[in-house]
Amino acid sequence: MISLDNRPIGVFDSGLGGLTALRSLSRILPGEDIIYFGDTGRVPYGGRSRETIMKYARQDIAFLRSFDIKAVLAACGTVSTNGLDEIAARSDIPVFGVVEAAAAAAAAATRSGRIGVIGTKASIKSRAYDEAILALRPDARVVKNACPLFVPLVEAGKIGDADPVLDLVAREYLEPMKEARVDTLILGCTHFPIIAGTIGRIMGPEVRLVDTGAQTALRLARCLKENDMLSEKEEGGCHRYFVSDNPDSFREAAELFLGGSLRGEVRHISVDEL
Amino acid sequence: MISLDNRPIGVFDSGLGGLTALRSLSRILPGEDIIYFGDTGRVPYGGRSRETIMKYARQDIAFLRSFDIKAVLAACGTVSTNGLDEIAARSDIPVFGVVEAAAAAAAAATRSGRIGVIGTKASIKSRAYDEAILALRPDARVVKNACPLFVPLVEAGKIGDADPVLDLVAREYLEPMKEARVDTLILGCTHFPIIAGTIGRIMGPEVRLVDTGAQTALRLARCLKENDMLSEKEEGGCHRYFVSDNPDSFREAAELFLGGSLRGEVRHISVDEL
Repeated sequence: MISLDNRPIGVFDSGLGGLTALRSLSRILPGEDIIYFGDTGRVPYGGRSRETIMKYARQDIAFLRSFDIKAVLAACGTVSTNGLDEIAARSDIPVFGVVEAAAAAAAAATRSGRIGVIGTKASIKSRAYDEAILALRPDARVVKNACPLFVPLVEAGKIGDADPVLDLVAREYLEPMKEARVDTLILGCTHFPIIAGTIGRIMGPEVRLVDTGAQTALRLARCLKENDMLSEKEEGGCHRYFVSDNPDSFREAAELFLGGSLRGEVRHISVDEL
Repeated sequence: MISLDNRPIGVFDSGLGGLTALRSLSRILPGEDIIYFGDTGRVPYGGRSRETIMKYARQDIAFLRSFDIKAVLAACGTVSTNGLDEIAARSDIPVFGVVEAAAAAAAAATRSGRIGVIGTKASIKSRAYDEAILALRPDARVVKNACPLFVPLVEAGKIGDADPVLDLVAREYLEPMKEARVDTLILGCTHFPIIAGTIGRIMGPEVRLVDTGAQTALRLARCLKENDMLSEKEEGGCHRYFVSDNPDSFREAAELFLGGSLRGEVRHISVDEL
């Protein structure tokens, strides 16, 4: 394998959700160094306006670029659907949002053409998923629903499949998806894989769930490989984490999203320095 | 009445909750001009660390002070319990948090001495309410519980007394209060008066609910009166609003908190300018 680029990959999210994408990325490319930024001082982004989301995304990316990174993974559904394409178009390194890869996976997986998308309020308000899916499969029917309580529920630890509050909220949010008989459902927020058990149980075994972070990690890996931009190392990649609120609370909460303990240091960066 | 100070009063909150306090204040003192700042670009504060909460509070107060105000009402339970006393001690104008007045009202109202406090995670983690109550009534027993989902539920519009999700969550959060048989319950977050109907129904009619914002508005009014700092106007006070995210979404959501339409202009101020 020709290995040409040992620079780290930058990954960011409004908070913790992006760690599900980092987990996928480090499984596919265990040798890559990764710098993660979680904007825990300003999480969540999902209820904010497009202008504010774009401003924060620009600051997050600028911070990651203060390290010499080779690519950016915007592991945040809200950022990916609110102006990231404009930011990516002006960037001299590849910037990946989670929409394109997830839309492609869903368009390939659906049999009936009925695809569901769930996400934050800002993600669903945007037409990013509709456009990406319809460009690939013009006959598709896209059914969307905003699920503003899923992120607070996950962050409050209400994630067990037997949790009655999660069950009640999920049944309400997923009702339009069941009614429309979608056969594929995009989990359009990187927090949602944590509650995929409950979502899958309610939707039924015949519905394919698309993990946006995991699909995007695959696409990013393919892009690096095709462009001879992989690291020389094939394992033992070094991970560093930066957050805009308390590093200790982040480290504690991160285990849930990583499915194991966080390796690597966690440092604080003030929002004023972004 | 001797009227000596026509400067406006500054009121701030992490977002919308503080409007419940503004509503009380403008009922008690309809002639006062009020400048409100809602940090909607960084809401919610309740899950953040003490350091971050204090940093944001300092910036919020500094912004309000860029107008020539005569007093500050920190209409945010999280700020009031996380270092506001330190900020107030160094201020040359009165700075009121919501803890003292609410603790005094609860200590005066309780018959059994068993007082409940509900609030955000950060508010409950602090010992601010315990200390304020025990200073006034050393024999009191203070029972606390963090209710991290109440703010997201209110902001998601799940506020109807018949809402099954709100009912389920509220029953879980209030269970320790009922078990301890508190006779007084402090609603330690300015969002909570919006769901006082559900809280009151679950707690039962014999339990007195203390609205922290309303109690603090009363105390602030008394302080201004005693110090001849009231405005000359006895009605028609002018209200101006500033928010760090989209003004239109704020105006829309504000009606719920104000119990009517918002009068006065709403302007945007970027978090970078705070």
